[in-house]
Amino acid sequence: MNKKTLIGLAFSLAASAGYADSIQENLKRAAPALAHYNQNVLENDLWKREGLSPRDRSVVSVATLVAAGKTEMLPQEFARALDNGVKPAELSEIVTHLAFYAGWNNAVAAADELADVYEDRDIDANDLPGADVELLPLDEEFEAMRENSVQTNYAPTSQGVADFTREPLFRDVWLRPDLSPRDRSLVTVSSLVANGQAEQVPFHLNRALDNGLQQAEASEALTQMAFYVNWPNVYTAMPIFQKVFDGRK
Amino acid sequence: MNKKTLIGLAFSLAASAGYADSIQENLKRAAPALAHYNQNVLENDLWKREGLSPRDRSVVSVATLVAAGKTEMLPQEFARALDNGVKPAELSEIVTHLAFYAGWNNAVAAADELADVYEDRDIDANDLPGADVELLPLDEEFEAMRENSVQTNYAPTSQGVADFTREPLFRDVWLRPDLSPRDRSLVTVSSLVANGQAEQVPFHLNRALDNGLQQAEASEALTQMAFYVNWPNVYTAMPIFQKVFDGRK
Amino acid sequence: MNKKTLIGLAFSLAASAGYADSIQENLKRAAPALAHYNQNVLENDLWKREGLSPRDRSVVSVATLVAAGKTEMLPQEFARALDNGVKPAELSEIVTHLAFYAGWNNAVAAADELADVYEDRDIDANDLPGADVELLPLDEEFEAMRENSVQTNYAPTSQGVADFTREPLFRDVWLRPDLSPRDRSLVTVSSLVANGQAEQVPFHLNRALDNGLQQAEASEALTQMAFYVNWPNVYTAMPIFQKVFDGRK
Repeated sequence: MNKKTLIGLAFSLAASAGYADSIQENLKRAAPALAHYNQNVLENDLWKREGLSPRDRSVVSVATLVAAGKTEMLPQEFARALDNGVKPAELSEIVTHLAFYAGWNNAVAAADELADVYEDRDIDANDLPGADVELLPLDEEFEAMRENSVQTNYAPTSQGVADFTREPLFRDVWLRPDLSPRDRSLVTVSSLVANGQAEQVPFHLNRALDNGLQQAEASEALTQMAFYVNWPNVYTAMPIFQKVFDGRK
Repeated sequence: MNKKTLIGLAFSLAASAGYADSIQENLKRAAPALAHYNQNVLENDLWKREGLSPRDRSVVSVATLVAAGKTEMLPQEFARALDNGVKPAELSEIVTHLAFYAGWNNAVAAADELADVYEDRDIDANDLPGADVELLPLDEEFEAMRENSVQTNYAPTSQGVADFTREPLFRDVWLRPDLSPRDRSLVTVSSLVANGQAEQVPFHLNRALDNGLQQAEASEALTQMAFYVNWPNVYTAMPIFQKVFDGRK
Repeated sequence: MNKKTLIGLAFSLAASAGYADSIQENLKRAAPALAHYNQNVLENDLWKREGLSPRDRSVVSVATLVAAGKTEMLPQEFARALDNGVKPAELSEIVTHLAFYAGWNNAVAAADELADVYEDRDIDANDLPGADVELLPLDEEFEAMRENSVQTNYAPTSQGVADFTREPLFRDVWLRPDLSPRDRSLVTVSSLVANGQAEQVPFHLNRALDNGLQQAEASEALTQMAFYVNWPNVYTAMPIFQKVFDGRK
């Protein structure tokens, strides 16, 4: 979006309603059938299903939108997440986490939207976790395994990637206390499905299940992702999920 | 794009021309060689090629942009589609269809742009197909095969995905009459190439050819996609298309 | 982004600061931990690493953002690129090149942002390479090999793609003199990693190394891409890079 463009538009056209209203309004004006599915299928059927709490559905929905760099529905989904019990600190940590798993730019764009939502609700930066927090204890055994694998398989190709994966990613970001390891794993898996990164799913889905995500929750998260990511990515992900499920029997 | 930002920009800078003009203008200002290719190769060569009608080129172009969540060229391509004979009802159905195949957010963002195009041309929501339409007859044999395959292979991983795939996707969306099955298939295949979802191409390309798309049209659609998606996705798709073509000999 | 929306926002809310400032400000407000990583890890650690010049880091960063259609960080990265010694003509050529490798819409959107950066710095379209430039000499041997491969393997699927790949892509775009073949290859490889197009990496990474990119530079470019693309795409790319490195020993 170009600066000049914005100003031209702003001064040469008449004013209308707010942003979220406008999106729903334009949906009805341009694709009335989709507006119907939005109300009857997405809102009334999907969000009211059992098997995954509204709070976790919001975690999945927000994570997929942030991960894929989609901002149009973000304001409404950030707001819904807060209504569903996702804490402001958790939303901030989701955005920070996804800077690594879905690219810096997508996290920056999401923070830009989140700042507005926080302002509307009088949530202040001082209420959010900053850089200095007491980290969760490191799982030394897992970390030794992970570090050994990365040093052996990836450091010869790019030492820098291997180094930043250790610090700050696994010895800092993942240990920040305001988003549980189970939620970080759910966010990571959602991001991988959102961006079609099937190769990386088994490691992180296994970790999610180790971190306390139930298999039935992972199954239902796929249902949420059908709408918030898309059908084809979810169909590609399903056999990979099933293989992980089978491997843990 | 942040609310605060927009307002700051709007009031602190001077006004300029409209949006579509601005995009062409900025192309000339920032990348004059690309502006040249845009005129001489994309407009004069690509769009005037034989082998695929201008109307179908518009279907492919709009579908790929909507599917990939690209909005900058959408206003001009929606307008061109209408000029090329794609009906307003068809554009609405394309957007609704892609909510499932390319993600809800991309469809919502596209509807937001399409509403403006309709307004410019005095196309009203009442002229567009709503939720209640008489559905095309169900192909019972195909549907039984599809349902059986999904229940066997995918429902054990996520019953919800399998259920929503049946209803509303295959027993409602696909049967809506204002976009032909052939066009829905062309839109779906274009979306899969746009988002690099090669795994799902064979099923939908075969269906497209069953639904009346000619093989020569599919070949030429790839040419259109080289520009509207990108070269690498098209090069990855070509062997998959060829395998489908060969399998039908 | 919808026209109506913009105007409503512009007139119904109060003004604030400029765009780049606002992004940093909102990062601090919504995700203070990410603002910290942005300063301490991305700015202070990543950008000051050895192994790849600041100029080349900018080429990689700009190419990945343009390729993935990410515009939020583009203004700051275009500006940083100019500060780091990337020439205005080179930035324009990067955008033009990526119209083919990452899709026309992403290039058009990037040009829209770049026009503003050029205007801020009084860089005029007349200072940039236009359509008529003296092309670099064609490597006849490579071109015969490439053309033969495309005609044999791809033209039967889509003659149009094969034809446009020759002209304008390989006999015009790649030979434009204001971006070196080495830089075009680095841009292309960065684009492929950004868009998760692993299949096409070996051809272009080998070409990059043939065109003068050092293996150590390619390794360090992956480190830059971890932040500017994302961790999973880079982890998927690393074994592919390693296989190319091993094949050249």
